[in-house]
Amino acid sequence: MARAKSKTRMNGKRVVAGPVAASQGEVMEKIDGEAGKLYHDILAEKRPRMLFPVRALSNVRYVRKNRSEGFFQIKGRKTERTLTVNTVKTFAQSVRTMAQLKDVVATNDIIGKREVYYNAKSWGEVRFDEQPEADTVVDDLEAMFAVNREQFNLIAEERGGNVAGSIVIVDRDPATGSPIDVDCTKLGTAAYSVPSRVEHLAFKTKADFILVVETNQLFERLNHHAFWRDANCIIVSMSGVPTRACRRFVRRLADDKKLPVYVFTDGDPYGYMNIYRTLKVGSGNAAHINEFFCVPQARFLGVTPWDIEEFKLHDATHPLEQVDIKRARDAIKNDPFIQHHKEWRECLEKMLAMGVRVEQQAFAKHSLNYVIQEYLPKKLARPERFLP
Amino acid sequence: MARAKSKTRMNGKRVVAGPVAASQGEVMEKIDGEAGKLYHDILAEKRPRMLFPVRALSNVRYVRKNRSEGFFQIKGRKTERTLTVNTVKTFAQSVRTMAQLKDVVATNDIIGKREVYYNAKSWGEVRFDEQPEADTVVDDLEAMFAVNREQFNLIAEERGGNVAGSIVIVDRDPATGSPIDVDCTKLGTAAYSVPSRVEHLAFKTKADFILVVETNQLFERLNHHAFWRDANCIIVSMSGVPTRACRRFVRRLADDKKLPVYVFTDGDPYGYMNIYRTLKVGSGNAAHINEFFCVPQARFLGVTPWDIEEFKLHDATHPLEQVDIKRARDAIKNDPFIQHHKEWRECLEKMLAMGVRVEQQAFAKHSLNYVIQEYLPKKLARPERFLP
Repeated sequence: MARAKSKTRMNGKRVVAGPVAASQGEVMEKIDGEAGKLYHDILAEKRPRMLFPVRALSNVRYVRKNRSEGFFQIKGRKTERTLTVNTVKTFAQSVRTMAQLKDVVATNDIIGKREVYYNAKSWGEVRFDEQPEADTVVDDLEAMFAVNREQFNLIAEERGGNVAGSIVIVDRDPATGSPIDVDCTKLGTAAYSVPSRVEHLAFKTKADFILVVETNQLFERLNHHAFWRDANCIIVSMSGVPTRACRRFVRRLADDKKLPVYVFTDGDPYGYMNIYRTLKVGSGNAAHINEFFCVPQARFLGVTPWDIEEFKLHDATHPLEQVDIKRARDAIKNDPFIQHHKEWRECLEKMLAMGVRVEQQAFAKHSLNYVIQEYLPKKLARPERFLP
Repeated sequence: MARAKSKTRMNGKRVVAGPVAASQGEVMEKIDGEAGKLYHDILAEKRPRMLFPVRALSNVRYVRKNRSEGFFQIKGRKTERTLTVNTVKTFAQSVRTMAQLKDVVATNDIIGKREVYYNAKSWGEVRFDEQPEADTVVDDLEAMFAVNREQFNLIAEERGGNVAGSIVIVDRDPATGSPIDVDCTKLGTAAYSVPSRVEHLAFKTKADFILVVETNQLFERLNHHAFWRDANCIIVSMSGVPTRACRRFVRRLADDKKLPVYVFTDGDPYGYMNIYRTLKVGSGNAAHINEFFCVPQARFLGVTPWDIEEFKLHDATHPLEQVDIKRARDAIKNDPFIQHHKEWRECLEKMLAMGVRVEQQAFAKHSLNYVIQEYLPKKLARPERFLP
């Protein structure tokens, strides 16, 4: 894989951007290379075999890129799948799925995981009996080739997030291939819905930053008042925990245009850990692809426990529930990301001491557009204070 | 409310389109009218009172517009809220919320339900203690004024659905008000994300029909191959049960441009009842607004149990589970929509007799694009056979 490194300037610090994703030609070469090895093993009357990285938390490390950035990465341990009487079905499924995915990439088509499963119904004895069988084979191939499944042109059912603001997204007409510019300042009250695969997109923008928000409701408020025009930014709505496509879109855009990424979620453990941390460093059980899906540029704008005091939100908070307290305590004790960043430990400890959580809509207590007129301008004036 | 009726031609039959939604001016007049009555009651030293329709299934009827169309509608029974010692808090909340919503409409701003709740934190003694209190007041006002909450400029958290194809959506720049045309043939591999409120949108299209599909995955396949260009249609993805915004968008577009609506879901009770029936006639517990959110033009394209036979999908089906069987039997016995349409009863009975369900991705069994090359063209050639 081409691991072209590029330099990125963010908040005045130089950081190293991640690997460039494999292009379609490279993916096909990888599949051909692996298939060629199997073919020659067979001709040489050797047992054909495939090597897959072990996909488990025990085979994961937290990779630090510098003081403030890192992601979960898969370690070297591999498992071997040799052709035997016991493995013949899985082995055949892996090879046929490789052929199927190569065909999809070669014809520039797309395929859903559910279609992988159904398409195999014509394979006779080696058809997949259940969806999880197909998923495992796809995940194994993804890990073996060190690509993400979007590079196999695999699409997910989940929607990718909404985008508006000062950006032109360069796409192509899927049928004719002619280039298409989508101007996200010209979508009215609506938004650009990020497609499942974003590898082929290019970007034109003079925006200063990307503002990623948790709720679609806040996104609509920011868009309704064209906040992105006044702040010269791009706004992205995650609608909760960000999907792979949303994370990859923000990552590619931030890498390509060297933009800082500011994240605005509810002030609770779910917002901090499940949403922000997933966007920034990825998730533990998908370590073999986190490298593509993490957004190391991400910085946390708010809502922090300190914001509750500064912006007088006390009477718009909610008491922490048991599940919040447990999640925060577990994170302080066990989460390598939190342990790595003392600012985050302090944030969780402050939240536990205050005993309350706060939502990003809470600013409406002052007035509906306080969040636009007061909170965001004040916070954005001092990005160096954002949490890592 | 202006109940301007317009004639629509669909599948050769003449049908009557529904009421035109109240414009912003009308909503403000309604609020002023109600507030004026309260004011004069107080001046005349009468106890002020408000009348709300009872929002319960017992106050709902199934309204038939003709042989094949109808929706759940609220009946006339009303409940009175008079100012007394016991009702003073709810009464005050209702009046203040009326004022708040009038202000939002007057300034052409938007507001989320969560913001209604938080904004009331400054109301002192009559603040909402919990979100459901605020929701009830909003729902009551919606029923009292016979508007939908989108006409109060209330937005939901849920996203509205994805759109692509032969249509230009006429919107405005939210900040400047300048008109904006969004050409949905020029979005590349991405889609138009329907905003929470669609009342202000206008449409330009020469499409022949709207194709509404259950899964985003199928939507992306249709879009990837620009199916909408070959079929001259507009494609909409619901991503499961359609949101209010998605239903309202399809309804307004279909009314305005007099377009038939064809719906393509999985072939199971969830697809038939929870998705298709909700889109077509609305849901039982929101009868006071179904009139705006039903899509009477909708016709069911597939997947039907008969399609399993015609398109040889037997080996790509799944056995019905107990929950499917129960849902289908309950519907045959109790659902007024199913009872009204013998075609639907036959469909559910056929499904129960076959004992299997089928997904819309199952066509991938033949080949990935069989659904585009074979299934849809064959079905679309005979729309008169679609289920009502």
